[in-house]
Order: sequence, then C-alpha cells, then structure tokens
Amino acid sequence: MVDKKLAGAGLRGQSAGETALCTVGKSGSGLTYRGYDISDLADNTSFEEVAYLLFNGELPNKAQLETYKTELFALRDLPQALKAVLQAIPADTHPMDVMRTGCSFLGNLEPEVDFNQQKKAANRLLAAFPAIMCYWYKFSHDHVEIDCITDEESLAGHFLHLLNGKAPSQLHRRVMDVSLILYAEHEFNASTFTARVCASTLSDMFSCITGAIGTLRGPLHGGANEAAMDMIQSFASPADAKIQMAGMLERKEKIMGFGHAIYRTSDPRNVIIKSWSEKLAQEFGDASLYDISVACEEFMWDSKKLFCNADFFHASAYHFMGVPTKLFTPIFVCSRLTGWASHVMEQRSNNRIIRPSADYIGAEPRKVLPISER
Amino acid sequence: MVDKKLAGAGLRGQSAGETALCTVGKSGSGLTYRGYDISDLADNTSFEEVAYLLFNGELPNKAQLETYKTELFALRDLPQALKAVLQAIPADTHPMDVMRTGCSFLGNLEPEVDFNQQKKAANRLLAAFPAIMCYWYKFSHDHVEIDCITDEESLAGHFLHLLNGKAPSQLHRRVMDVSLILYAEHEFNASTFTARVCASTLSDMFSCITGAIGTLRGPLHGGANEAAMDMIQSFASPADAKIQMAGMLERKEKIMGFGHAIYRTSDPRNVIIKSWSEKLAQEFGDASLYDISVACEEFMWDSKKLFCNADFFHASAYHFMGVPTKLFTPIFVCSRLTGWASHVMEQRSNNRIIRPSADYIGAEPRKVLPISER
Repeated sequence: MVDKKLAGAGLRGQSAGETALCTVGKSGSGLTYRGYDISDLADNTSFEEVAYLLFNGELPNKAQLETYKTELFALRDLPQALKAVLQAIPADTHPMDVMRTGCSFLGNLEPEVDFNQQKKAANRLLAAFPAIMCYWYKFSHDHVEIDCITDEESLAGHFLHLLNGKAPSQLHRRVMDVSLILYAEHEFNASTFTARVCASTLSDMFSCITGAIGTLRGPLHGGANEAAMDMIQSFASPADAKIQMAGMLERKEKIMGFGHAIYRTSDPRNVIIKSWSEKLAQEFGDASLYDISVACEEFMWDSKKLFCNADFFHASAYHFMGVPTKLFTPIFVCSRLTGWASHVMEQRSNNRIIRPSADYIGAEPRKVLPISER
Repeated sequence: MVDKKLAGAGLRGQSAGETALCTVGKSGSGLTYRGYDISDLADNTSFEEVAYLLFNGELPNKAQLETYKTELFALRDLPQALKAVLQAIPADTHPMDVMRTGCSFLGNLEPEVDFNQQKKAANRLLAAFPAIMCYWYKFSHDHVEIDCITDEESLAGHFLHLLNGKAPSQLHRRVMDVSLILYAEHEFNASTFTARVCASTLSDMFSCITGAIGTLRGPLHGGANEAAMDMIQSFASPADAKIQMAGMLERKEKIMGFGHAIYRTSDPRNVIIKSWSEKLAQEFGDASLYDISVACEEFMWDSKKLFCNADFFHASAYHFMGVPTKLFTPIFVCSRLTGWASHVMEQRSNNRIIRPSADYIGAEPRKVLPISER
C-alpha cells in the first residue's frame, strides 16, 4: 500500500495540491514566481510589484502600481486598541509571538467577513506588519511610542524608517526591497502548507496567516538567518571562522544557513543577497562581518560541498542596515505574507478540505477499569 | 507517478504519519482513544481522566487523578493583562477569533520556552480556556467582569458555572463532561493536522494550538453544531421539520450535522449525545427541540440514508444547558485542545518537518518587461 512508506516522512516529495504561484528547484536550482525568474524580479521590480504579481497573476503597469501603492500607504497605521495590546507584550517575548498575536488581534478588529475581502485583508496585513513589529520593539525595548506613519514610498523604506527613526539611505531601501522580494514565496513550505490547510476549512485570512506565522516560528523553518548571525558574530576573523567551523563539524553541531531541502547545487537567492551584502559592507566601512561570511561559505563548500542558502548572507546584510537580530524572522513574515495570502486565495479557488489519514501504532482495544482497580 | 493522482484531493485517504492516539472508523464505525472505545470512556470516565489518558498514554489511578485535578484547578484564573486584551475585543467578533487571540496572547505572557514544559503549557490552556471564553462573552455581551475562579471540581462544571453565574445541576455537569470527552480527539482532522504541521518545525505549543483554533474556525470543520442549531430552531414542529428539510434537499441546500468524511454507517458519538439530549429535554420541561431533532434524524435517514454525526444532537443538548449558540465551537476548542496537544507531543517525539510538494500549473518561464511597456 502506498500509504505506508510515506508515513512519518513529512510528505517529502509528495504532492499535496496544485499551484500556479511558484516553482522551486524545477531544474535543480531555479526559483520562479508566476513564471518570472527570481533574479529577474530582484533586478527589475520592487516588492510592491511582486506582491501585486502574486496576488493578481500579472505584474502591474505604471497606473496600477501607483494605485496599489497608494492603497497600501493608507493602510499602514495601527488602531489604538492594537497598540495597547502590543504595549502589553513583554520585552522578552519571542518576536514571532508578537507578530502572531498582532495578526490575530487585528483580525478581531477588522475581520474578513466575506471572501471578496481577501485581497483587502492581505493588503492590510502587508501594510501593517512593519508597524506591528516596530511599534512593539521600540516600546518594549526603548520605551518609545513611535508614530506608525512615515512618508516613505515603499514598504521596505517604511520599515527601516520606523525601526531606525530616520530616513534610510537609497542603498538600504533597495537592499531591503530586494530582501522582501527574495523571501516572498516558496511553494509548499511548512508555513505555507499550514496556511493552506487552514484555508481548506474555509476559515478566514487572519486565521490562515496567524497559523503560518506560528509555523514559521519553529527553528527548523524560520530563524536560520538569526542562527547564522549569532554564529558569524562569534568568529573573530575569517581565519578564526574556518578553525571554529572545523570544530563544529567535528562535534557534529548543526550549522545554520547552508544546504536546502529542495535545492541540490545552489540556492538562487544566495548570489543576489550576497552581492548586496558586499555593497553594504563597503558602505558600512567595516567589511569584517562580510569577509567572515565569505570565509564560512568557502569553508562549507570545500569541506562538505554545502552551499549558502538564502538565509546566510541575509544575516550580514540585515546587520549592516541596523536591524537587530531578533527581528530577522519577523521581516520574513512581512515578506512571506504575500506568498501565504496568495496560497490561501489559490486554495479557496479550488478547494477540498485537507484531511489526511494516519497509520495507527497504538494500544490494542481494551476496557476501562474502574478507577479503584487501576 | 503517485504524486499526480493525489494532487488537489486534500490528501484524502493518504497517510501523513503515524499515531498512537486514536482510531477513526477502523471497522467502519468505531472511535477509540488509546485503545478505549468512545462509549466506554463516555460511560465510565471523566473528561479529566481522558485528558490525562491522551497526554500520558494511560488512565490515571485515584491518586494521579486527584493530583491532576488539583493542578488544573490552580491554573484556571487569567492574568490581568489577558483580561484587558479580552475586554478590548468587540462583542461582534467571531468567538473563535477570541479563542485564537486569547491563546496567542497567553503564549506571550507564559511562553513554552522548552519542550519539557509541553504538558504544563497544554494543561494551562486546558484550565484557562473556559475563562477566556466566558470572560470575553460576559464582558462584551452583558458588561459584567466575571470572577474566573469557581469551586467547581470539574472543568465541565467550571465552564457552566462561569457562563451561567451559578452552580449547574449534576445532570448538566455530567452532560458537559461527556460532551468534552466526545470531542476530545479525532485523528488527523484538518485542525489537528495544522497543529502537527506547525509542531513539525519545532515551534512552540501556543503557536500549534493557535493555528489549530484558526483551522477549526472554518465552516467546513467546526461550526456544524451551530449551523444545526440555527436550522432546528427555524422549524416549528417535527412535521414542519420534515416539510422544510424536503424543500432544502430539493433546493440542494447544505444540511449540517449529517454524514461524515470517514464514518460510513453511523457516528459512534451520536447515540451517546442523543440519549443525554433526551434526558436534558425531559428536565427542561419542553422537549420540542429534541422532538424536532429526532424528526430531522428520521427524515435524513429515510430520504438520503444519511446519519447524524456528533454535532447534530449536541445542538439541542447545549441549548438545554443554556449555552448560547455562538459558543458551541469554542467549547469544541476546550475539548479538542487535548487531542491537538497530544498530537503536538507525538509529532515532536518522532519529528520530520512536514513539507510536501506541489504540482505546478502556472505560467511558463517569461521575462520581466520594463514597467513602461506593460
């Protein structure tokens, strides 16, 4: 029976549905969103264009993009009741728990009551997530109640502006924009699959995204760039990196940011973020973090034939832009929301409830004993 | 290739893992929790014993049960910050959104920081959910800030006491207890599967349960008893029920509370809750709601050979106990939490990330056009 051999194997390699959104590793290395190669999108579009593409199927023309950006611009601020909830979340809370709760609570205030509101709900979250993250972070860590509105044109610039309290450089705006494009969509990864299972009961958009955030929170999924950052920062120099990593391999410690469940020879997102990280290092005036990262990449390839995935050079890139390490995974949320919401819409458009079976490995039939005899 | 024929079919009949918790319809009709038949459990145990069984693998003896109930008793009250969040949720919010947000926010205040806290986290939610539901409900609907502590020994009694502001009858305590047993666990249904996908990234218990709540919220999953209630209440008499239902069938309208994805000839939970509903009707002094329900059952069997599932007689049973219809699905949460949390623990004990593939049906490779040319 087919069932048996798949059980417990995490459905790896098993199709759980159809999608028109994305191909991952189709030729062993590529990544496309709706037919467009990831490097073409990263070079020639903005994150807002990619969000529009994912939600609507086609890239916007100039008028459509202007309209869309205006719509998102008006959706950035947070309701006072949500700010109060964010204020009540302790500073030592996992930032992904903050995103999860912020998303869930916004769904209390502004529910998606009909599926014809699905794009509106997705756009609301897209526009509001940077403020949810930064408002909580600045309040809990710096005791500052930030204004959640900026005059930044892009969500990338808006986020950096909220976080750092000042207008970012053009380079920073562009790198954050590219980063949001790179993380936007990745087929049936675990968090996206959660969103689809949730959507398959015809639940609302906020429930689907809340569940996806909770899934991305797990260390086997999101968080690899945070772990990579911690490791890179623990190395004193490129030479030290190679010595330390050799020790880690010998002790069979897990090294985050390398290899991939699906890509076999390279992650197409790595070369893109790596080149931006190099530019940021030059601007930053201290390239040591970048040089250490390059040393790590060389070492892992030479010793294990393992390549950097999208997360590895994101660590140094985010660091150069002044992003605290604990906010790396929440940025992933701000980006991947576009993929999650697109999958929710796609699941709804041709739905069947996702309800697999299980192989039973438990106790044989037995009788309840009276409690006095147990 | 095996992949193809399964795509889009919601993984129906496809094994997605192993479980020792439950069998559903193994002989076409049965339901067992860890080897015990559901009717044996409903007749001879309490919900706390079932929760202990699911979490620990064996039914408790007398001393273990006393210790467990004492532990749960101490975990019933809500932190002030959570009460403030519940107060901020509007009265017209979907009650499942309240449960989702309450669960998520409690995870901010009392996170599961290590998997050795998993039972503690599950027990905390088990003890706190009745108060999360009732505190919000009574505050938003009746403008009353209820005390979240009662001297009720059981969670079933505690919930009814919180809701109605007075000690329930022994009969009501027992029926609610049985109801919580009946809904506790049901293998890889969609909400449980969400909890397992989330757990498979090694995320925390609160994320897994929050995601499961959002999934149960969907009308294809939870909520059938609410829909059944609305329908039953719209019928004036048993005779009217049969006339109206004939019309619904003719108009091909969906009739909730009948049939099941897995059970073929009957839902083993129906006969149990039906007999309790009959007892409640006698006590209530007006059996018309019960009589109408019986007429519905007869009609659906005679005309379509469709049987009542667990949800159908739950509608009248809950109604006789004074439970508002909109709280039916949140009660489901209070019960099913035990199954969800058990599946999270089971997934963690032999984990592989759940990451299926998808069949691509989208656009062929294409080039980004400059925005001026789109």
